[in-house]
Amino acid sequence: MPAQVPQGTSASAAISREELQLATRNHGMPLEALRWPVTPVGLHYLLIHYDIPMVDAGAWRLEVGGLVRRSRSLTLAELKSRPQVTVPVTMECAGNGRARLSPRAVSQPWLVEEVGTARWTGTPLWPLLEEADVAADAAEIVFTGLDRGVEGGVEQRYERSLPVAQARREEVLLVWEVNGQPLPPQHGHPLRLLVPGWYGMASVKWLARITVVAEPFQGYQQARAYRWRQDPDEAGVPVGPIAPRSLMIPPGIPEFLTRRRVVPAGPCLLEGRAWSGWGPVVAVEVDTGDGWRPARLDPPEAPHAWQAWSYPWRPPASGEYELRCRARDASGREQPPEPPWNLGGYADNSPHAVQVTVAPAGASG
Amino acid sequence: MPAQVPQGTSASAAISREELQLATRNHGMPLEALRWPVTPVGLHYLLIHYDIPMVDAGAWRLEVGGLVRRSRSLTLAELKSRPQVTVPVTMECAGNGRARLSPRAVSQPWLVEEVGTARWTGTPLWPLLEEADVAADAAEIVFTGLDRGVEGGVEQRYERSLPVAQARREEVLLVWEVNGQPLPPQHGHPLRLLVPGWYGMASVKWLARITVVAEPFQGYQQARAYRWRQDPDEAGVPVGPIAPRSLMIPPGIPEFLTRRRVVPAGPCLLEGRAWSGWGPVVAVEVDTGDGWRPARLDPPEAPHAWQAWSYPWRPPASGEYELRCRARDASGREQPPEPPWNLGGYADNSPHAVQVTVAPAGASG
Repeated sequence: MPAQVPQGTSASAAISREELQLATRNHGMPLEALRWPVTPVGLHYLLIHYDIPMVDAGAWRLEVGGLVRRSRSLTLAELKSRPQVTVPVTMECAGNGRARLSPRAVSQPWLVEEVGTARWTGTPLWPLLEEADVAADAAEIVFTGLDRGVEGGVEQRYERSLPVAQARREEVLLVWEVNGQPLPPQHGHPLRLLVPGWYGMASVKWLARITVVAEPFQGYQQARAYRWRQDPDEAGVPVGPIAPRSLMIPPGIPEFLTRRRVVPAGPCLLEGRAWSGWGPVVAVEVDTGDGWRPARLDPPEAPHAWQAWSYPWRPPASGEYELRCRARDASGREQPPEPPWNLGGYADNSPHAVQVTVAPAGASG
Repeated sequence: MPAQVPQGTSASAAISREELQLATRNHGMPLEALRWPVTPVGLHYLLIHYDIPMVDAGAWRLEVGGLVRRSRSLTLAELKSRPQVTVPVTMECAGNGRARLSPRAVSQPWLVEEVGTARWTGTPLWPLLEEADVAADAAEIVFTGLDRGVEGGVEQRYERSLPVAQARREEVLLVWEVNGQPLPPQHGHPLRLLVPGWYGMASVKWLARITVVAEPFQGYQQARAYRWRQDPDEAGVPVGPIAPRSLMIPPGIPEFLTRRRVVPAGPCLLEGRAWSGWGPVVAVEVDTGDGWRPARLDPPEAPHAWQAWSYPWRPPASGEYELRCRARDASGREQPPEPPWNLGGYADNSPHAVQVTVAPAGASG
């Protein structure tokens, strides 16, 4: 972390009114919802930059243009008549963990639970672009949403681009259903982009326009936000694939205000889920106070869906414990012991820690 | 407000880590969702005291007992075979507005948007109790949920009671659907109580047991929480019906961090919704900087559903404005100019204020 508190960050442990306004609108996935392999609608994390648009799906069109030979304007019915796939995908906010950093970027103050896994239904993106006949000198594809606001002094629609090589991945979809239902307003009704394995900022919601361009896109959400930098003057490195992370279903029952857990004496099966955008998770370890030990790990249901893990814990005595978990993926990336500090507060994937009180044997519970 | 900062409250404008943990789990209704007369699932406010239980609806039973002649144990199918009603009901959290108070109770730090209107489907409560044959000396009905935690040092399931006179209201329902879908986990799957017109704490989720009792229930959520008091030593007055409130759809577009609105020059139709648990709303007024003026007000779709209002505003010049709205109901209750301070931070229904920048005429927008 830097010696001085950079502009736009706060070194205070306390959260400001502006951060609270964002925390009251947006929400994480309550950690106990890790029990569900597919996150129920309403429990998946949500980050809405501006306002949720109210879109008339009948009047809506997807415009495909820019450096293509055949521009297109597609209705939702036309999109739905294309080949369909349904796939479970774990999505996470790039700012997950931000409020654990010090100093922290003043933005949505996420702790650790900004994640969810949904079954998305849609059609692959690239065949549509092939039909539009993308020019040979295309560099990137720009995706424009209907949500509009001011950020960093710039009035904008939410827009992000993908390099052509990313956009060609067969996993990249245009989706209109989540968990078997039409997309609800907050997830991008009637259509959103889905970029499996990347942080959620890439999966543009309320998608209205796809534009093929010859130069790297310089929009706010690409060139200024979502970049890993230590200093405001750096160009920085764009945030892309999801860093490995594991979370634990908090065992026992919570104390309302502190969320500290109370666990009865005796054996306690710790369970959770782990994921990475860089490849399958190959190991999860748990530390209950005496070092890291391997957990049992299930294979993923699909390439970009989280994996269940479990660890049988027998607390040696009543008292206070800190339980932690960490994941390592097939690329060799592992959750680091300390948060990787950066100016925007992205991708803090240091281990999840759960504070637990084990009740004395014989106590009611 | 008190001269000293009472125990369990904070006089700091900043939000603590414990409050943030709650704000990250629970969420309000993004204010732009006021556009929908029925709030889509996932946008309705949510306050979960403990953990969301994962309930097997097939194994679940509703137990009806206590001071009844015929105890019952009902399956969900048995409940669904009873007479059904579907009704739109506006629900609001009793703590809505808490974080605007100073000092404020250290709890879920709500601002103003903890509300939602859903179409709930279920069966009236009282006929079920009549069949169970309630004893003549019954005073209250206790409703016990499956959610369990520790609060105020007391380990508990979430439990609340209603006086018999309240429980007999034909509007009080046992509900299993919201907006035409089975209740999702976060709204009480498979069954919850619905007490229209009362703050949400009365509408017990994950309902498992109904117990008829002869004495006023002394459980934590009844005798200690959800009571209007100035001092911790007071018994206080229970919080019940929803105080009148109106909210405004923030006009224009937001600035990401501050949520301040940017509105183009020219006519601007202000719109919103208003409700009260004490009777229909009879007047909404808007103040754009030169005093309170009457808004146009629609009748409610149902007795406990919010009412739409609108007010044509023509900003006299570009610049900064604060827009406010307030409601008055048929009982004569009106939103007060200042928050009504109380220890638990309940029912702060002082007016909603929206900060707006009107752009100069001719500016892009």
